[in-house]
Amino acid sequence: MVRPWFVATLLFLCEAQGSPQLLRGESEYLKPEFKEKYFSQILDHFNYNSVGNGTYLQRYLITDQYWKKGYGPIFLYAGNEGNIWEFALNSGFITELAEQERALVIFAEHRYYGKSLPFGKESFHIPEVGLLTVEQALADYAVLITELKKDLKAQRCPVIVFGGSYGGMLSVYMRVRYPNIVAGALAASAPILSTAGMGDPAQFFRDVTADFENYNPACRDAVKGAFEKLQTLAQKEDYAQIQSEFSLCKTPSSAADIHQLNGLLRNAFTLMAMLDYPYKTAFMSSMPAFPVKVACDTMLKGNDLMSALKDTVGIVYNSTGKLTCLDIYNLYIECADPTGCGLGFDSMAWDYQACTEIEMCFESNGVSDMFPVIPFTQQQRELYCAKKWAVLPRPGWLKTQFWGDDLSTASNIIFSNGDLDPWANGGVRKSLSSSLIAINIPDGAHHLDLRGSNPADPDSVIQARKQEAQVISQWVKMERMKHRSHDF
Amino acid sequence: MVRPWFVATLLFLCEAQGSPQLLRGESEYLKPEFKEKYFSQILDHFNYNSVGNGTYLQRYLITDQYWKKGYGPIFLYAGNEGNIWEFALNSGFITELAEQERALVIFAEHRYYGKSLPFGKESFHIPEVGLLTVEQALADYAVLITELKKDLKAQRCPVIVFGGSYGGMLSVYMRVRYPNIVAGALAASAPILSTAGMGDPAQFFRDVTADFENYNPACRDAVKGAFEKLQTLAQKEDYAQIQSEFSLCKTPSSAADIHQLNGLLRNAFTLMAMLDYPYKTAFMSSMPAFPVKVACDTMLKGNDLMSALKDTVGIVYNSTGKLTCLDIYNLYIECADPTGCGLGFDSMAWDYQACTEIEMCFESNGVSDMFPVIPFTQQQRELYCAKKWAVLPRPGWLKTQFWGDDLSTASNIIFSNGDLDPWANGGVRKSLSSSLIAINIPDGAHHLDLRGSNPADPDSVIQARKQEAQVISQWVKMERMKHRSHDF
Repeated sequence: MVRPWFVATLLFLCEAQGSPQLLRGESEYLKPEFKEKYFSQILDHFNYNSVGNGTYLQRYLITDQYWKKGYGPIFLYAGNEGNIWEFALNSGFITELAEQERALVIFAEHRYYGKSLPFGKESFHIPEVGLLTVEQALADYAVLITELKKDLKAQRCPVIVFGGSYGGMLSVYMRVRYPNIVAGALAASAPILSTAGMGDPAQFFRDVTADFENYNPACRDAVKGAFEKLQTLAQKEDYAQIQSEFSLCKTPSSAADIHQLNGLLRNAFTLMAMLDYPYKTAFMSSMPAFPVKVACDTMLKGNDLMSALKDTVGIVYNSTGKLTCLDIYNLYIECADPTGCGLGFDSMAWDYQACTEIEMCFESNGVSDMFPVIPFTQQQRELYCAKKWAVLPRPGWLKTQFWGDDLSTASNIIFSNGDLDPWANGGVRKSLSSSLIAINIPDGAHHLDLRGSNPADPDSVIQARKQEAQVISQWVKMERMKHRSHDF
Repeated sequence: MVRPWFVATLLFLCEAQGSPQLLRGESEYLKPEFKEKYFSQILDHFNYNSVGNGTYLQRYLITDQYWKKGYGPIFLYAGNEGNIWEFALNSGFITELAEQERALVIFAEHRYYGKSLPFGKESFHIPEVGLLTVEQALADYAVLITELKKDLKAQRCPVIVFGGSYGGMLSVYMRVRYPNIVAGALAASAPILSTAGMGDPAQFFRDVTADFENYNPACRDAVKGAFEKLQTLAQKEDYAQIQSEFSLCKTPSSAADIHQLNGLLRNAFTLMAMLDYPYKTAFMSSMPAFPVKVACDTMLKGNDLMSALKDTVGIVYNSTGKLTCLDIYNLYIECADPTGCGLGFDSMAWDYQACTEIEMCFESNGVSDMFPVIPFTQQQRELYCAKKWAVLPRPGWLKTQFWGDDLSTASNIIFSNGDLDPWANGGVRKSLSSSLIAINIPDGAHHLDLRGSNPADPDSVIQARKQEAQVISQWVKMERMKHRSHDF
């Protein structure tokens, strides 16, 4: 649901092209000097017998370059579904704020992602994969921070947790679950409602569509028209023509191939909508500034809709223009997250999470959105997950565990969302109290506010970051006062 | 740590004597008509692969005889370490309050106790026992109540959770963990601090001692003197004399036997202190009113301290006077809870919990208390638990998980404690805010307030129950208003 899968996609593309350095972060302004460390973490927090007191090595990045030792706050990034370096290198706001607040910064990697593989290469075997849950990840962060605070003599330092997307969800959960450990949470683009099965299954792709439509209604019509043409060819089983139109490496030969192709095409629009940043993003080597604009300009160029669609998805899948054909099964893997799981190990982990706790039964229907009809019902999810992972999802569990929209007893959480982000309306858009603060960023895509400052930043994200900084500074002060009042 | 082990002890004694009916509840005033039901409960809430979506049958008792259907609140008792009937039949306050508030009453049994054995007879095998954790039990209650509310069309009915002792701890945890599900908690005699490794290891037996000392300082001296005499005999290895003094069934033959004897003797005082109720307790057929008084009167009768000690512990272990000798290994089993685990399956479950999450490294030292020196260090606990259950405790875990004394973000909890109860000072004794209310009951023993009204009740418990009723009534009203404001 967030970066990792396109990071994975691009990692794949970039590595294939021998340019992994393009994956470095965006910030030219602040280069935090993170040290990479490993923490001996409990494997199973919720069972003392399953693997005894077995441990695994959890990776984390740490920098004390801004820290007022033993006094300044601790900024903890709750790692989400990917290599922790990707988040550290693309969340410049956190280090900018750390400089202001003289904070220690820790980016903790989520178990089963990056190098934090509890069982090495066997991590995705059954039953080894069973220790991949939200609760285990949260407990990892709670134990890690508790131990590090002891080691660093930082027991009195207030901890603020940050996260984007699923990491934002984890930030909310950390504050809800461990307010004894974290004094506040900045949850950027955290779709805590839609992923808990609350809301309209059509919302996500409707909002992807809206981005393109808002740029130009003709763009939406063009995309819709192109998909309809593809549908017509598919119905005629004119597979050779489809291969030719999209420069596919192999001729499709079944409805399943067409389904795969449709998924791959839809996914390109999803990514461009989520990542509609006002400047080139470094870790997406080829993603231009304003990709939605670029996509629409491409879609509306010339008269051949199919050709335009091919060129448009090429912005994502063939950014360098060097691929001579599209391998639809290598560039996109269908999984339990209709918005994409990416490629590689990380995508397997996310697929598993989408098959268990994280509910994403999102559909496109061709009516409220511009895409082909691709349903994804709980029943389809069940069948897929049983076959793939030998698990059955438990709808409602996340809502029970993390309170759904009943957050009235929570406090000190910022829910930031960008209006351009199709995930936004799956999150909290209105302040729920004076300490449950919604910040909406009209010109923001997926957690733009977490990124470092950039000359191209729209005013709305500059203002959002200012407000976030003020609120966080206040939380730090309040936490200090709480400790002081304990002393007397 | 609570009733179950003496219930188990007495169940054993009573069954041996063919009078199980003596175990019925105390309340002659209200006889709620509970129906016994079973709920198909998820076996492993925190792992989708370990046992698939396997389920077990969780027992619960329910009565709607007072309920204003679909409107009245739901009173949920969070079952603790024993047969749920014992709690239902000895918590008359809940049903008395249910009548006032027109509430539905549910007593939910804790997994691995009573008839809620997830793997039947194999439940205490390794690794099957691994699913016995606080978190799993809480999740059971959360899922049970969520499903029952749907089935009973009671979605809008506020839920209040009740519990005594470990059940009181679970009540606190339910409110802390699932405020989306429970609007408030009455935690009676819940030692949430001492069981999280916070506090003085000498506190418990010091407070047991204080009960006897407060009745009569000479009582304390007599008990201490008796234990010293025993110690002298043990040092001389005069085992025949010891057997004779205590009418033991077998002659002790080692320091281990003396250790066992000391544990058994100390435990009798623990039970009498905890259960120092002002009237005979029905489920303890022989426990007289004011057992501490009776014990001290017995201790101070005659001049032979050893004989007096034998007679005093006989109040607990030989209440009918029918036992011709004491079998020290049958009447008391040493375990990871120095205050006793009881006998039977339930005691195994509690021992396991004391070996994993619940920390009870309590010592007696013969200086701040009247007992023999019986240390129980983390190291001893580790050795015992590794050998017995193949687990290593994780000190600090409960504090991390359930916030220790850092409850400032919690709300709507009553911490009630009786001053006579040796568990009291392991709990919260001072109000932490206007909605985290400590109620201290000067003349109360272990969760006396949860018991039904009795003519012998001291004024302090009558007042405590009144205050509890008022606060709970207020919570119910507030929760209704919250729902109403959601509607507009």
